[in-house]
Amino acid sequence: MNKKGGQNLKMWEEKFSSRSKTMKASAIRELLKLVESPDIISFAGGMPDPNLFPKEILGEIAKEVFVNHGGKALQYGPTEGVKPLRETIVKMMQEEGIKNVGLENVLVTTASQQALDLIAKVFVDPGDTVIVEAPSYVGGLQALQAFQANFVTVPLDEEGIKTDILEEKIKELQGKGVNIKLIYVIPNFQNPAGVTLSLERRKELLRISHTYEIPIIEDDPYGEIRFEGEKFPSLLELDQIGNVIGLRTFSKILAPGFRLGWIIANATAISKLALAKQAADLCSPSSTQYIADKFIRDGYMNDYLDKVRKVYKEKKDTMLNAMEKYFPKEVTWTKPHGGMFVWVETPEYIDTDALFIEAVKEKKVAYVIGSAFYPYGEDKRHMRLNFTLSTLEQIDEGIKRLGELLQSKIR
Amino acid sequence: MNKKGGQNLKMWEEKFSSRSKTMKASAIRELLKLVESPDIISFAGGMPDPNLFPKEILGEIAKEVFVNHGGKALQYGPTEGVKPLRETIVKMMQEEGIKNVGLENVLVTTASQQALDLIAKVFVDPGDTVIVEAPSYVGGLQALQAFQANFVTVPLDEEGIKTDILEEKIKELQGKGVNIKLIYVIPNFQNPAGVTLSLERRKELLRISHTYEIPIIEDDPYGEIRFEGEKFPSLLELDQIGNVIGLRTFSKILAPGFRLGWIIANATAISKLALAKQAADLCSPSSTQYIADKFIRDGYMNDYLDKVRKVYKEKKDTMLNAMEKYFPKEVTWTKPHGGMFVWVETPEYIDTDALFIEAVKEKKVAYVIGSAFYPYGEDKRHMRLNFTLSTLEQIDEGIKRLGELLQSKIR
Repeated sequence: MNKKGGQNLKMWEEKFSSRSKTMKASAIRELLKLVESPDIISFAGGMPDPNLFPKEILGEIAKEVFVNHGGKALQYGPTEGVKPLRETIVKMMQEEGIKNVGLENVLVTTASQQALDLIAKVFVDPGDTVIVEAPSYVGGLQALQAFQANFVTVPLDEEGIKTDILEEKIKELQGKGVNIKLIYVIPNFQNPAGVTLSLERRKELLRISHTYEIPIIEDDPYGEIRFEGEKFPSLLELDQIGNVIGLRTFSKILAPGFRLGWIIANATAISKLALAKQAADLCSPSSTQYIADKFIRDGYMNDYLDKVRKVYKEKKDTMLNAMEKYFPKEVTWTKPHGGMFVWVETPEYIDTDALFIEAVKEKKVAYVIGSAFYPYGEDKRHMRLNFTLSTLEQIDEGIKRLGELLQSKIR
Repeated sequence: MNKKGGQNLKMWEEKFSSRSKTMKASAIRELLKLVESPDIISFAGGMPDPNLFPKEILGEIAKEVFVNHGGKALQYGPTEGVKPLRETIVKMMQEEGIKNVGLENVLVTTASQQALDLIAKVFVDPGDTVIVEAPSYVGGLQALQAFQANFVTVPLDEEGIKTDILEEKIKELQGKGVNIKLIYVIPNFQNPAGVTLSLERRKELLRISHTYEIPIIEDDPYGEIRFEGEKFPSLLELDQIGNVIGLRTFSKILAPGFRLGWIIANATAISKLALAKQAADLCSPSSTQYIADKFIRDGYMNDYLDKVRKVYKEKKDTMLNAMEKYFPKEVTWTKPHGGMFVWVETPEYIDTDALFIEAVKEKKVAYVIGSAFYPYGEDKRHMRLNFTLSTLEQIDEGIKRLGELLQSKIR
């Protein structure tokens, strides 16, 4: 074979789809390649703290599952997910307060990223309009971008997506005859902004969805990782009509290395998404589905989540305290009640894209540039800081370094 | 929430993409739902024999990996795959005789079905022409169908795809200005036909790919499961130019429940496919990647494959012997040197779609209808029989029942 593609580079360009030309490497992932040096303190990425993983318990469970149930756990499983796990998920959803949910409303996915990919595949024709929060999750934008979505953005504030602006934009678009395909929101401890959608706005968002007949994608990876503040019912729970497609994941509440998440929605949407999943990967790993299911059935989840919440709260407090101490007063930030991220806003004259290079090279500290979270990269005065991966000492030291850099830029 | 989608069914129809309207449920999977009754002997499906899974070894390895390396194995991994497994794959490919392969030529996928999905995504615009074997793998057709490919079929015989007809069709299409995107082939123990591409035709196929500048997708899930006959070098090995994209999987040589496969190709194609994978599921399961890697590094693979080959050969022989004994002389079948399937041809007046219902209801025996393996369902005189899942006794009894049914239809 030829390693590079050799004389045929031109041929390949002629064979690639037009879709593939709009695919962009995640700015985060490209930047992270700069950050592999061990002396850098990284607040980039969005990984759980691996020191908390219940390694011993999962090791015992994996052994038991493979040795005693390997015939099923090592075999192909149903596209919709293995039955015991789907039953467990239905139970979890019912305990959360979601009514009327049954097996036909659950599709196990190869984590939430696949759920986003399937949703894009099933809903988005090239040029179709999707409404997203500004800022929004990079992976969500990427999945939709790969299917050539046209993005309309609606800003956030401390209470989440601004529903008044949302309604105005919908009226304007529908007035022009645009078929808005989806509204994509992350209501709890939003990635990247860290804010939570208020109860009033949740109800307002559902009213808008119903009035203007637009499905809502409720991406909720962090809902269980609330360490303070009031818990609001999910859009799934509040929805009476079936307009909400809910996305959940084991990546933040158990182990990203299992690649497991699930979609909860009405049976019409689920059966269409299952068809797309069949062509995408046949089924999610039976092996990790049986392991995750046994972890929950054996009652380990609550203790594990308690530990996660406790440790993450301490890390978040350490980060916010360090910011109070080291950041210039011209810089502001969100105060998340859960999740993994703080969203920092700089004065307009500080370009956080440009600052990133200095931060990494001179101060040996990394963050994610705010522009990565806007579909057209239009904002350059934010940074996303992750507080779950670093130690308390690294958090204090990293924020100190970043504070020094920010201080030096203040006019 | 609303279980069914309630009053909003019409809304959902208006929101689904045009692509999603061309997605078809696999005829196999739909038919298999009829076959869940325990008294049915099923030659449908394409599952490995779960009795052969190395459950104890994998149980021990999983425990060791999670307990001692859980920090990595339970965490997110790189989109391209975890480095130790990619190194192992490079070594395996080099040992097979593929020259010039390096880490930049490997993309770990969530098994081969994802590889097919990524290839369709990266290469196929709606209406683009893809050449496939007739018959071909249902999952490959489904993946391409989901991206609205236009199929041109080329027939097979005992030596695989008929390269003379292939060249004629390419000349005709390119003469009309058609940009043929891909040629999709399964050279070893083809699914469903069980035939193997001869060495001469392999060389001819590569010459055609080079002359007419069309990439080849070489899907090779069964290459390691050869139990007799001569081994031919893969297209990947024979290719000097880099036109071949090779697909391999752990589903047939280890465990489908791990959802792991890999793509081998030139770096240009790999980087594009990796970008598509990032948006599709971020990364394949780190957990099963570390387990599979340790299984290979600890030297268990060869013994396991020897056992698989021995058992499958015995099952294949049992099936072919039973067919000699029970099938009418008007019916013919392929004699596979490996893999999992036998392809049966009936006289033209027997419609195997119609016969399926009788087989299941009256004879309690199931197969996959031949028409499922043609993009436009145009052939109704074949059946695919799987010999890996059933016991020797079931194989003999099932073929006897099918033989009785076939005998009753002979004119």
